Amino acid sequence: MRLRKIKQADVKLTAFFDIVILGGEQNRGHWQDVFANNHPIYLEIGMGKGQFISEHARRHPDINYIGLEKYDSIVLKAAQRLEKEFLPNLRLLRADAKNLELIFQPGEITTIFLNFSDPWPKERHAKRRLTFDNFLRTYEQILSRPGIIELKTDNRHLFEYSLLKFNEHGYRLLAINLHLHEQANPDVITTEYEDKFINENKIIYYMKVEL
Amino acid sequence: MRLRKIKQADVKLTAFFDIVILGGEQNRGHWQDVFANNHPIYLEIGMGKGQFISEHARRHPDINYIGLEKYDSIVLKAAQRLEKEFLPNLRLLRADAKNLELIFQPGEITTIFLNFSDPWPKERHAKRRLTFDNFLRTYEQILSRPGIIELKTDNRHLFEYSLLKFNEHGYRLLAINLHLHEQANPDVITTEYEDKFINENKIIYYMKVEL
Repeated sequence: MRLRKIKQADVKLTAFFDIVILGGEQNRGHWQDVFANNHPIYLEIGMGKGQFISEHARRHPDINYIGLEKYDSIVLKAAQRLEKEFLPNLRLLRADAKNLELIFQPGEITTIFLNFSDPWPKERHAKRRLTFDNFLRTYEQILSRPGIIELKTDNRHLFEYSLLKFNEHGYRLLAINLHLHEQANPDVITTEYEDKFINENKIIYYMKVEL
Repeated sequence: MRLRKIKQADVKLTAFFDIVILGGEQNRGHWQDVFANNHPIYLEIGMGKGQFISEHARRHPDINYIGLEKYDSIVLKAAQRLEKEFLPNLRLLRADAKNLELIFQPGEITTIFLNFSDPWPKERHAKRRLTFDNFLRTYEQILSRPGIIELKTDNRHLFEYSLLKFNEHGYRLLAINLHLHEQANPDVITTEYEDKFINENKIIYYMKVEL
């Protein structure tokens, strides 16, 4: 997601040391220590301002959540939102998805959420899509067995592309919905983007696949 | 598709013996003899008035086509439309899709088209959907290897259901389009229904899977 750059966001982030983790490589293989329990860990790649992942954490105290985001300013925004409400089962991770294998050891993650990822519509940018082969291979590394990926997007082409890629990599399709919000459903936890799209009556595509 | 019943349609059909085949069990294992060549055979299940399958036959003289339809009156309508234009590579087959294994021997069909099949939305009617497990098992019997199924529908739930079923049965997803006619595309051969839906700006879903 895009957000105006906040001055000295990187410095300001250090004040949120109880919830924000920088880099994350230092925790590889020891993420359960961070949460001080052995609950499964769910990871959102590209959490934006964190509405989705924090609501998950509220509803499911027996699951640990990590919201990954690349940009200091966005992580800062998410951290500020959570300032008055410490959720012990949630951490925000400022890191690049390219480094996932340096951050998590094989099998350390149970579920990955990909919400409204950048569609990178140009063919020459296909390798930046979060469902490009390289990323899928990375997910196959860090996910447990069974391992789950849930994907939501408003972008038809990214969704079609992702269906083909998951199929090619042998994932099992567990659920699919080609108009997620046709009927209102309070059980669906939404992102900030998603709320906007629902108001605009846009189609949101959803799938759940299993390794 | 629905059509007003034509009186004595079954009797009238016999006049079209050069193009209409009744039952089809008599040709099991010998369909290439019907066409007097060894070209691959493509089958549309539920051809309606035959616009789609006859246009395919026109464009691809090196492929043999069979349009299957259950009801006499509809087959008659399709046959009457083709009266002035004999296409040597097309036959209309009045038969029930339930009997496919009695009509075709293993591997006799190369491609199956499922266009705007009845969605049977009620769960208790799921077994009537043309992508219910029993039907998929039948297709796996009569299809060659590789064997292709192309499916188009305006019904989201049938499409979602079919994606799950094909995936469950181990089919490979070769192509998918979640809004086939967003851009006009003269290469897409349409059915009568489809033309109507295009005019109404309805979403048409398309997929191509491989056994």
